[in-house]
Amino acid sequence: MPPKEACGIVGIASTRPVAFQLYFGLRALQHRGQESAGIATFQDKIQCVKGMGLVHEVFQDNPSDLPGACGIAHVRYSTTGSSKIENSQPVVASSSTGDIALAHNGDIVNADAIRKELKKLGWAFITTTDSEVLIRLLANELASLDDIPRAVRNLMRRIVGSYSMVVLIRDRVIAIRDPLGIKPLCLGRLPDGNGYIAASETVALDVIGAEFERDVEPGEMVELTSRETRSHRILGGRRPAHCMFEWVYFARPDSVLAGRYVYDVRRCIGKRIAQEHPVKADVIVPVPDSGRTHAQGYSEETGIPYEEGLIKNRYIGRTFILPTKEAREMNVQLKLNAVRSRIQGKRVVLVDDSIVRGTTTRKIVDTLRRAGATQVHVRIGSPPIIAPCYLGIDMKTRDQFVALNRTSPEIAAEIGADSVGYLSMDGLVECIGLGRNDLCLGCLTGEYPVEVPGEKARFQVKLDSY
Amino acid sequence: MPPKEACGIVGIASTRPVAFQLYFGLRALQHRGQESAGIATFQDKIQCVKGMGLVHEVFQDNPSDLPGACGIAHVRYSTTGSSKIENSQPVVASSSTGDIALAHNGDIVNADAIRKELKKLGWAFITTTDSEVLIRLLANELASLDDIPRAVRNLMRRIVGSYSMVVLIRDRVIAIRDPLGIKPLCLGRLPDGNGYIAASETVALDVIGAEFERDVEPGEMVELTSRETRSHRILGGRRPAHCMFEWVYFARPDSVLAGRYVYDVRRCIGKRIAQEHPVKADVIVPVPDSGRTHAQGYSEETGIPYEEGLIKNRYIGRTFILPTKEAREMNVQLKLNAVRSRIQGKRVVLVDDSIVRGTTTRKIVDTLRRAGATQVHVRIGSPPIIAPCYLGIDMKTRDQFVALNRTSPEIAAEIGADSVGYLSMDGLVECIGLGRNDLCLGCLTGEYPVEVPGEKARFQVKLDSY
Amino acid sequence: MPPKEACGIVGIASTRPVAFQLYFGLRALQHRGQESAGIATFQDKIQCVKGMGLVHEVFQDNPSDLPGACGIAHVRYSTTGSSKIENSQPVVASSSTGDIALAHNGDIVNADAIRKELKKLGWAFITTTDSEVLIRLLANELASLDDIPRAVRNLMRRIVGSYSMVVLIRDRVIAIRDPLGIKPLCLGRLPDGNGYIAASETVALDVIGAEFERDVEPGEMVELTSRETRSHRILGGRRPAHCMFEWVYFARPDSVLAGRYVYDVRRCIGKRIAQEHPVKADVIVPVPDSGRTHAQGYSEETGIPYEEGLIKNRYIGRTFILPTKEAREMNVQLKLNAVRSRIQGKRVVLVDDSIVRGTTTRKIVDTLRRAGATQVHVRIGSPPIIAPCYLGIDMKTRDQFVALNRTSPEIAAEIGADSVGYLSMDGLVECIGLGRNDLCLGCLTGEYPVEVPGEKARFQVKLDSY
Amino acid sequence: MPPKEACGIVGIASTRPVAFQLYFGLRALQHRGQESAGIATFQDKIQCVKGMGLVHEVFQDNPSDLPGACGIAHVRYSTTGSSKIENSQPVVASSSTGDIALAHNGDIVNADAIRKELKKLGWAFITTTDSEVLIRLLANELASLDDIPRAVRNLMRRIVGSYSMVVLIRDRVIAIRDPLGIKPLCLGRLPDGNGYIAASETVALDVIGAEFERDVEPGEMVELTSRETRSHRILGGRRPAHCMFEWVYFARPDSVLAGRYVYDVRRCIGKRIAQEHPVKADVIVPVPDSGRTHAQGYSEETGIPYEEGLIKNRYIGRTFILPTKEAREMNVQLKLNAVRSRIQGKRVVLVDDSIVRGTTTRKIVDTLRRAGATQVHVRIGSPPIIAPCYLGIDMKTRDQFVALNRTSPEIAAEIGADSVGYLSMDGLVECIGLGRNDLCLGCLTGEYPVEVPGEKARFQVKLDSY
Repeated sequence: MPPKEACGIVGIASTRPVAFQLYFGLRALQHRGQESAGIATFQDKIQCVKGMGLVHEVFQDNPSDLPGACGIAHVRYSTTGSSKIENSQPVVASSSTGDIALAHNGDIVNADAIRKELKKLGWAFITTTDSEVLIRLLANELASLDDIPRAVRNLMRRIVGSYSMVVLIRDRVIAIRDPLGIKPLCLGRLPDGNGYIAASETVALDVIGAEFERDVEPGEMVELTSRETRSHRILGGRRPAHCMFEWVYFARPDSVLAGRYVYDVRRCIGKRIAQEHPVKADVIVPVPDSGRTHAQGYSEETGIPYEEGLIKNRYIGRTFILPTKEAREMNVQLKLNAVRSRIQGKRVVLVDDSIVRGTTTRKIVDTLRRAGATQVHVRIGSPPIIAPCYLGIDMKTRDQFVALNRTSPEIAAEIGADSVGYLSMDGLVECIGLGRNDLCLGCLTGEYPVEVPGEKARFQVKLDSY
Repeated sequence: MPPKEACGIVGIASTRPVAFQLYFGLRALQHRGQESAGIATFQDKIQCVKGMGLVHEVFQDNPSDLPGACGIAHVRYSTTGSSKIENSQPVVASSSTGDIALAHNGDIVNADAIRKELKKLGWAFITTTDSEVLIRLLANELASLDDIPRAVRNLMRRIVGSYSMVVLIRDRVIAIRDPLGIKPLCLGRLPDGNGYIAASETVALDVIGAEFERDVEPGEMVELTSRETRSHRILGGRRPAHCMFEWVYFARPDSVLAGRYVYDVRRCIGKRIAQEHPVKADVIVPVPDSGRTHAQGYSEETGIPYEEGLIKNRYIGRTFILPTKEAREMNVQLKLNAVRSRIQGKRVVLVDDSIVRGTTTRKIVDTLRRAGATQVHVRIGSPPIIAPCYLGIDMKTRDQFVALNRTSPEIAAEIGADSVGYLSMDGLVECIGLGRNDLCLGCLTGEYPVEVPGEKARFQVKLDSY
Repeated sequence: MPPKEACGIVGIASTRPVAFQLYFGLRALQHRGQESAGIATFQDKIQCVKGMGLVHEVFQDNPSDLPGACGIAHVRYSTTGSSKIENSQPVVASSSTGDIALAHNGDIVNADAIRKELKKLGWAFITTTDSEVLIRLLANELASLDDIPRAVRNLMRRIVGSYSMVVLIRDRVIAIRDPLGIKPLCLGRLPDGNGYIAASETVALDVIGAEFERDVEPGEMVELTSRETRSHRILGGRRPAHCMFEWVYFARPDSVLAGRYVYDVRRCIGKRIAQEHPVKADVIVPVPDSGRTHAQGYSEETGIPYEEGLIKNRYIGRTFILPTKEAREMNVQLKLNAVRSRIQGKRVVLVDDSIVRGTTTRKIVDTLRRAGATQVHVRIGSPPIIAPCYLGIDMKTRDQFVALNRTSPEIAAEIGADSVGYLSMDGLVECIGLGRNDLCLGCLTGEYPVEVPGEKARFQVKLDSY
Repeated sequence: MPPKEACGIVGIASTRPVAFQLYFGLRALQHRGQESAGIATFQDKIQCVKGMGLVHEVFQDNPSDLPGACGIAHVRYSTTGSSKIENSQPVVASSSTGDIALAHNGDIVNADAIRKELKKLGWAFITTTDSEVLIRLLANELASLDDIPRAVRNLMRRIVGSYSMVVLIRDRVIAIRDPLGIKPLCLGRLPDGNGYIAASETVALDVIGAEFERDVEPGEMVELTSRETRSHRILGGRRPAHCMFEWVYFARPDSVLAGRYVYDVRRCIGKRIAQEHPVKADVIVPVPDSGRTHAQGYSEETGIPYEEGLIKNRYIGRTFILPTKEAREMNVQLKLNAVRSRIQGKRVVLVDDSIVRGTTTRKIVDTLRRAGATQVHVRIGSPPIIAPCYLGIDMKTRDQFVALNRTSPEIAAEIGADSVGYLSMDGLVECIGLGRNDLCLGCLTGEYPVEVPGEKARFQVKLDSY
C-alpha cells in the first residue's frame, strides 16, 4: 500500500437541485480523501459548505440547504499533520466576473515559483494552498477576458503539474484536465436527460444513476450545462501520462479508467505476477484489502487455493501515541490477525499491490511466520518504487524506499521473506493496456513527464512551452 | 446478514496493570458491539470508565488512568432506538462484600419475571437493564454467603437464558458460562506467565499475545487469579446448545469456537452448499463482507471462478432519514456497486451467510441484474430462519422472516432470484462438526433449548429444575 | 462568598403539558446548581432526560419531547472533582407500585450508616449517591403500603439531615420538607387555575406566572394534583432550623423565603453592620456580585457614597491549571479590576456577605491597595464561620476557616485589611426576622440542629426519636 | 442597550514570550466580542490560532504553543447570522515582504467600493471580509516600498471609516488609528521594562500589569519594539471624532478613554439626567447591568434611594426559537425579575444607558408595573438615537429607532412609561469632557464625520482628500 494521497472531485450542471447528487457522488469518492469535504452550489450567488471529516459527518445526510442546479464538490485526503479547515475545498472567490468556486485534485509542481513571482508583483496570499494560487490566477485572467477558454488557456500555460479541476463560474460548470491527463476525470449524462456530470471516477456516476460518456481528454476543458457539454481543446497534442497508481491502488475496483475496469487490471496483474514469479506454494493470501484482487488473479492463474488467511480489524480509527512498547505491539497485532488453520505448515504466497517503505510488509510477514507459515513468498502487483512523486502522491523523499539500490534478495532479507517478486514494467503496462508512453511511471523510473527541478524529464521539452 | 446482536466481554487477572490488555482485547471484539464500551479495574476500589461509541473513541488509546492488576471490560451492540449510557456495561455495585463489577453477553429469558417477583419483595430497580438484575441478585447472594461458588449457583439456578459473564469481586475475576454454553467464552494464559484471561472469542487472546487454553464449559464458573484458574462446576451435566450463528456470522473468521476455526466452518459451508445446490453458472460472487468465505468455498468446490463483483462502500456511517425517494435510491446504490465487466452476460451465483427479511438480498439481486447478470442464483450458508431468537439475537417477531411459510421457489420469487438454495440442517451441523443436539437451532426449528413462554422447548425438562 | 452548594428542585401537577414550565422554573433556579440538569415527566410511564451542563445547554430550549401533565426537575451544583452524569437527578426507579422519580436538595447525614445497614441485609448499591438510598428506601416502603403518607413517614423516620424533595409517583407529585425545614421549599398556584407547583425558591414561580401560596412546612408532605394540594403533617412539632445562608448568599435576591424578601434581608444586614461597625470612610465598595446589596444598605445607613469600584469579568469559565506564576497572577487580576478614580486616595469600606478561607478577600484587599486605597475596612454580612456544615454546604473541614481561633484584628492582619467587622449573631437574627432558634446556625456556632457524630447537637433529643 | 458591536485588539512587542500576555489581554477585552478569538505570534514565521467562541474556550487556558516575543490578538463580536470561522481575525498573508498578520476594530465605509475597483484590476477576493481588503492592500503597498510608514499612508489614504488596527510585520508590531480616532486604542509599557503593548482599552493593560502611557493619536501609526515605541503621524491635523458610545455603553467601566474613566463619565451622566429630568419618585432602579452606574449617579444627585429592584438571570445562553407564545413569555420573564418589596406602591425611576428599538424597555416597564409600581419614569443616559451607524455599531437602518420622529411623550406612550427623559446633547458632551466637535455623534444627529453615500457629512471636506 502506498501512502494516502489524492482528492476526489465532482461537478454537476442540471435542470434540478444538485445538492444531493453532489453529496452522493462525493460519498462514492470518499476513498480518495477522508480529511475534509465540501460542496459549493450556485443560485443567484455561490454558497459553500465545508467541514473536517467524512462526507456524511460534514453534511449529516442533509446537504439540501444548498440551493441551485449546478455545483461542485470535493473530498480531501488525510495526512497526519496540519489538517485544517483552511485547506479544504472548494475555494470560492469573488471577482469582477462574479463569484467563482474551484476544486482540484493533483499537485502543481511550480506553485511555489508562481507564488514567488506574483508576490514580486505585490500579490499577498492569505492561505498557503495551491487552491488560492489557482483560483486567483484564473479570476485574474477572467477579469480581463470575457471568454472563459482563453482565460483557462492562460492559466494552464502557466501551471505545471497534475490537475483535474472542476470550476463553477456563476451557473457554468467547467471541467479541466491537465495536458498529460495525470489525474482521472470523466464525463457522464444525468438520468432523465437532466444534465451532465464530471467526476474523478465513474463510481460517482454509478451512484447517482448517471451514464458514463467519456473521459475528459488530457489538456481539454469541457463546459457543462444542463443541455449540453461543449469541448475546448486548450493544450495538448502530446501523449498522455496517466498515473499508473490509479489502477494499482487508488481508484475503486468498480471504477473504469481510460476504458479499463480497475478490477480487471488488478486481476490481470495478479495473473501476470504468477507467470513472472511462479513459486511452489500451498496457499495464496492477500494483504487485506489492498492485495485482494491481485491475489485472486494469482490464485486463478496457478490453481493454488486462495485463502483470506489474514483478517483485518475494520474498526481502526485515528491512532494516538501509545506509551509503552507492549501497547504498540498490541496495536500492530490488532490491525491484522492470522487464521492459523490456513497458514500453519503452509508455504504462503503473500500478495500486495505495492511496497513503499517495507515496514508494514515486514510486520505482516512476521505475523504469517508466527502463525506457522513454513515459507513466505511476497508478490507485488507493481514494479519497485524507487523515486519520489511530485504529482500527487505523498512520497516526496528518496530515503524512504526499501527497493532503492536493493536487489530482490536484499529486499526479501529486509522484509523477512523467503523471496520477493515484483511485477515487471512490461507486465504493468500490458495489464493496464495502454502504451508505456501513455503512463506516468515517475516513481518507478525517476523520469517524470513534466520538468521537476533536479529530476530527469522524460520528454525533452518544457511543458510550459506549449 | 442477520441483525446486529451480541456483546463482547473480557476479564483479566494479572500481576501487572491490565488496562491496556483489556483495552486491546476489547478492540479485538469490537465487531460484537459498537454502541458503547467500558472497562472496570480494581485497585483498593473498583473504578469504571464507560462511554458511547467505539472502544478507541471512548478511551482515546489511553485507558492507563485505570489502575490495577485485574479487571473486566465490555462492548455493547448498537440498536437503532434507545441507546443510552445508562445501558452500558460493566455495571458496578457496592455491597457488604465490597465492590463488585459485572459484564455479560446474552439474554435472560426470565428477567422480567424475576424483576416482578423482586418488586413484590420491595425491590426497586433504578435502570431497565438485565445487568442490574444480575448484579443485585449476585450481591444479595454474596451478602449472606462467604463462598462465591454457592452465591453464583444460587444466581444461576434462578436465571434462564444465555449468558457469558465476567465478574470482578474485589481482586478476583470470575468467568461464568450458562449451563447450555449458548454464548462463547474462552480461557487463555497471559504472556510471560503473568496471569489469566477470559474472553468472548480467541481473537481477544491473540491480540495481547495470550495463549488459548480451553473454552469455559457450559455451567462452569472459573475463578482467575494471576497464579491460577480454579474451576467450579456449578450447573450442568446436560448437553450444550451453542448458538450456531456464532460460526455462521457473528464471530470473527480468525476466532476458534469449540475447537473449530470459524473461517474453516464457513469455507466448509460454502463447499457444502455447492454440493447441495449445484447450478450451472459462470461466476461466484459474495455479498461483501458477510458471504466472502462461504463464496470462496463454493468456488473451490465447483471450480467456477470467484469474483468480487460487488464492491462495498467502506465509509457508511449512521444513516439519517432522507427526504426524497431519489435520495434514498442513491443511498442504496452507494452501499454496493457492481463491477459490470465481471457480471454482464454472466450467470451469477450470489452467496451470503443468511437471510432474515430478504429486503437487502432483493436489492442486491436487482443490482446484479442491472449490471447485466443473465441469471442470479442465491445460495445461503445456513438453513431458513423461521422463528424468533430469545437468546441474544435482535429478531424477536415472526412476521419479519421471508422464509416463513414459503417454499424455495416462492422465496426466489420474493427476492427476484432465479433460484434460492439454503444449506441443509445436516450440512450446517456437519460443517460445524458438533452434534445436532449440541447446538441451539431455535431460530431454524422453533424449538428452544430453554423454556420460553409460548414456545416449544426442545428438552422436556425445565431449566430451573436443575 | 461561601463555596458553591445547593441544588434546585421543581415539581408541577397540571391539566396541561408541563415540560416547558418545568424547564423555565429550573432555569430560574440555575444559580443553585450549574453542573447538571434533569426533568422527569409522567404520561403512561415516567420519562427522564438528564445531562451535564446548564439547563439550556442540556435541553436546548426544547424540553417538549417530554410528554405529560406532571413532572419534577432538578439542577445540581458544580464541584471541582467527580462530576458525572451518574450523579445527576431526578433518579427513576421501577417498583411494584410502578415507576417513581425523585429529586432532592440537601445532605443526608446518616446516608452512609443507612447504606451500611442495608448492605448487611443484602442490598447492593449501583451508584454512590444519596438519591439511590432515598428512592430505594421509599420504593421499598411503598411496596408494602398502599398509602403514600405512611411510606413517606417511614422514610423520614429513618433519615437524618436536610432535605427538600419532590417525588413523582405515577401521576402524583409529592413535595416533602425535612422536619427542620433546613432547605427552602414553597408552593404556588399555576396561572389559569391549571394546577400546582412546588419549588426551591419563589423565583421559579415568578417565571411561569404562578402565584405564591405558602412555604411547605418543616416535616410536611404535600400531595399536588391539578385540582388541589393535600397536606400531611408527617413529622414535626418542633421549631424549624432554616439555613441562614439562604438569605445571606444562596438564594436569589428576588426570592421570598419564610415570608422575607432575600433582598430586604441583605439590605437590612448592610445597615446593621454599619451600625455595629461604623468607620470613617470615603467610599463603600461591594465585592461583586455577592456583596452588592449588603453594601448598598451600608451606604444608605452611613451616607457614605456607594461606588462599584471593583469590576468583575463576566466571562470567567472553567479555569485550567496555569503553567507559570505570572500567568496565575494575571488570572487573578483578570477576575476583578479596580476603578482607580474611585479608590485612589480613599478610605474604602469593602463589603461582602461572608468569608470562609479568606484567600479571595486577601487578594481583593490587595487589589484595592494597589489602586491607591489609603485604608481598607472589611465588613462582612454574617458572623464568623468557624465550623463545618453537614447539611448541604460544601465546607466539611475545620482547618479551612480563617476566623477559627482568631480575633478580628488577627483576621484583619491575615487578609491585609485595616479592620474587619463581622455582623453580630443578633444582627443576623434580627435582619432575617425569625427567632434565633428557628435558624440553623451550625457553621457559626458549632452546634447543629441534628445529631452529627462528633459534634454538639443543639437540641438534646435525637432526631430519629421523633 | 444598543445592539452588540465592536471588536477588541491587542498587540505586544516584548523581549519574552507573549502568548500568555496576549491571551489575558484578550480576555480582559472579552466584552467587546464573544463570537471568535484569535492570536498570531511571530518567531521565524507567523503562526496563528483562531476559533469560534470565548477566548478561554478557544485556547483552553493554554496559548503557550504559540512561540515568539511579539504578536497580535483579536476578539470578534457575535451577530445572530453568518458567524463563521472564515470571518475571524487575525488574518495572515504572505507577501514579498514576508508574512504579515492584521487585526482591526471598526467599519471601512468604502470597502465595497475599493473591492469593486480592485476587482476591475483583476483581483479576486477569497473571503467577504474587510480584513482581506486591508491586508492585501497593505501587503501590496509594502511590496513596492521598503518603508512601512509610506505603505501605511497609502493604505490610509484609500480607506474611509473607523479603524483601530494592530499589524504584525515579521517581528514588528504596528498600531494604527484612523484619522478621526473613532475607535479607541491605547499604549502601555510592559512590566519590568520588557516592551510595549497596544490595546483597545486600558483594562487589557491592567490585567498584565502594564502601565498606561497614552492613547494612540488619531491618524497616528506607532511602531512597537521591545525597546521603544516610534511614532509616525500619517494622516491628520483635523479634530478627532471619538465614538461617544464607548463611554455610554461599550467600554468597560474600569477603562480610561481619552483620559476619562468610563465609570466616572457614566456616574456624571446619571447626575446630569437627574438635573435635566427631575421627577418625584420613591426609588431609582437600574436596568441591569447596563444602567447601573448611571442610576447610581441619578440616586446620588437626587437622594432618592438606589435599589436593584430588577434581578437579571446570569445564565442566559443562546436563545432558540420557542414554539408557543406561553414559552416565549416565560423566556422574557426569565431574563429579568422584579423585587416586589422594593417596587410595589412605589414611583420608580428606571435608568438605562440608551434606547434603540424600545421593545426591551417596554417589557421592563411592564415588569415593573406588574410588580406594583405606581409610576414608571424612564431616564436614558444618552440623547435619542435617530440615525444609523456606519462606523462600527450594528444598527444600519432607520426604521428601527423608536425615537425617530417621536416626541418624548410619544416615546413614553410607546414604551408604556409615565415619562421619558433623555440626556441632552450638551449633557453628554460635558460629562464626556471633550469638545462636541471631538466626538462622533452620527447616530444622534444624522451628520457623520466621514462621507457616507446618501448621508450628510458633518465636515465639508472629503476624508480622502487628506
